Amino acid sequence: MEILDGKKISNQIKEEITVEVAQMKERGEKVPHLAAVLVGNDGASLTYVGSKVRSCKKIGFESTLIHLPEETTEEDLLKQVHQLNNDPAIDGYIVQLPLPKHIDEEKVLMAVDPDKDVDGFHPTNFGKMALDMETFISATPFGIMELLKRYNVDTEGKHTVVIGRSHIVGRPISILMSQKGKPGNSTVTLAHSRTKNLKELTLQADIVISALGVPRFLKADMVKEGVTIIDVGITRVADDTKEKGYYITGDVDFDNVSKKASFITPVPGGVGPMTIAMLLKNTLLARERHNN
Amino acid sequence: MEILDGKKISNQIKEEITVEVAQMKERGEKVPHLAAVLVGNDGASLTYVGSKVRSCKKIGFESTLIHLPEETTEEDLLKQVHQLNNDPAIDGYIVQLPLPKHIDEEKVLMAVDPDKDVDGFHPTNFGKMALDMETFISATPFGIMELLKRYNVDTEGKHTVVIGRSHIVGRPISILMSQKGKPGNSTVTLAHSRTKNLKELTLQADIVISALGVPRFLKADMVKEGVTIIDVGITRVADDTKEKGYYITGDVDFDNVSKKASFITPVPGGVGPMTIAMLLKNTLLARERHNN
Repeated sequence: MEILDGKKISNQIKEEITVEVAQMKERGEKVPHLAAVLVGNDGASLTYVGSKVRSCKKIGFESTLIHLPEETTEEDLLKQVHQLNNDPAIDGYIVQLPLPKHIDEEKVLMAVDPDKDVDGFHPTNFGKMALDMETFISATPFGIMELLKRYNVDTEGKHTVVIGRSHIVGRPISILMSQKGKPGNSTVTLAHSRTKNLKELTLQADIVISALGVPRFLKADMVKEGVTIIDVGITRVADDTKEKGYYITGDVDFDNVSKKASFITPVPGGVGPMTIAMLLKNTLLARERHNN
Repeated sequence: MEILDGKKISNQIKEEITVEVAQMKERGEKVPHLAAVLVGNDGASLTYVGSKVRSCKKIGFESTLIHLPEETTEEDLLKQVHQLNNDPAIDGYIVQLPLPKHIDEEKVLMAVDPDKDVDGFHPTNFGKMALDMETFISATPFGIMELLKRYNVDTEGKHTVVIGRSHIVGRPISILMSQKGKPGNSTVTLAHSRTKNLKELTLQADIVISALGVPRFLKADMVKEGVTIIDVGITRVADDTKEKGYYITGDVDFDNVSKKASFITPVPGGVGPMTIAMLLKNTLLARERHNN
């Protein structure tokens, strides 16, 4: 059994980007500039955005945090978005979700210039991904593909079962895994809440990608010997014995499933850390594409 | 066994549109206007476009055929596309594929205004489809969904195996079948050229959608009793005993597979006739959306 170490790989990727940015600087070129728009004071969102901005600084990117008050109107947010679209200094930006309830999320995401949409959430970028065109692939599925690639996990002709059909993980990863490419060329089954015979399916799977959000849902008796497991679930489980009052767990009963697996991602330290790395990678790509 | 009669249903849809167009006229409203751009003199393309234009006339749409010479430059074609984008008289238009080799097809399709892209080929429309947003779904997958709907085929929780991952059929229908909705909510496996155990998969399928283009590929021993079969393959097989020198056949060994099936589409007369009907439906939707 080999651990797919997202922490290690994400650090590798950040180091690679750091080198590239240093070279850009040496050549006197503009370095990548990521902006993040945060509306309101949601705790988790503050943490995520803060971590993204800190990562930018660490690797030599420029970064801008635009922190707007909770009561910002949709109109004002859209103005901000248009300003970012038109600002040549900004290579890419994200609008941190969720937005306050009085703002139409879809309307805001649709207003983001697809060429600066480093989250890959705009339908144009999603469509390009599905149609094998150059695009920004959103960070979580992009991170999974990169992890499989760096560990040389063989996916061709393998049966991959994806659990969960969300727009940001299950749906895109089911598409990417079945496309031509390496990793890719997998026979993909997309399972979801209406699936009746899930265990029958996962027992056939060479690769299981679980993006369900149900702690320890996937048990050892649901997978076959030698399976590769990608655990995208990240759930906080209340636990008074822990300092923070909770611990983080994935969709997979790691202790037991890992005994049968060839490869497995831990939670935390698997898919999670890859997400910020791939956002930074997309911002670098945005910079390079704007250069061309 | 019940035949999913695409010929009959497509005529029903055309009749329904005819009634709606007549009502638009009575209310003094502009009727839908479809334009088709054809470059060169490819025989099959001339037939398709001709048939689309004739269908428009029959149901009361306005239509414009823009027939450009084979030697048209990419620049001139793009000019034509921009003109159509800016012409308020045109509700929707298609650029008939394939284009001559000296023209970059992707560049042309990307230039089509997504709001007039009634073929649903633009990445923005594809992405909206995949993200459950209002869009134009391309005609063949849209036609399959409509056929399943009108025959009340139960898809929820069923296992659908799609054979073929093309951008215009396999990929989009695999997405649509697994989305929330009726039809929809199916557990979908997408199989393709790299799939190793196809027969094992099709034997599990409640619904098989074959978009492969290999005559009579799907045999009776590959499916289970009670299966629903959607045959998207249309291949011409040379045959001197036929007047035209060929006959049309699908991916499915109809005579034998139909004996095991609950529902099955014939070829010809199944998915094929639905395609033009759904293009007309999209043009009607374009007109209605431009009104709003």
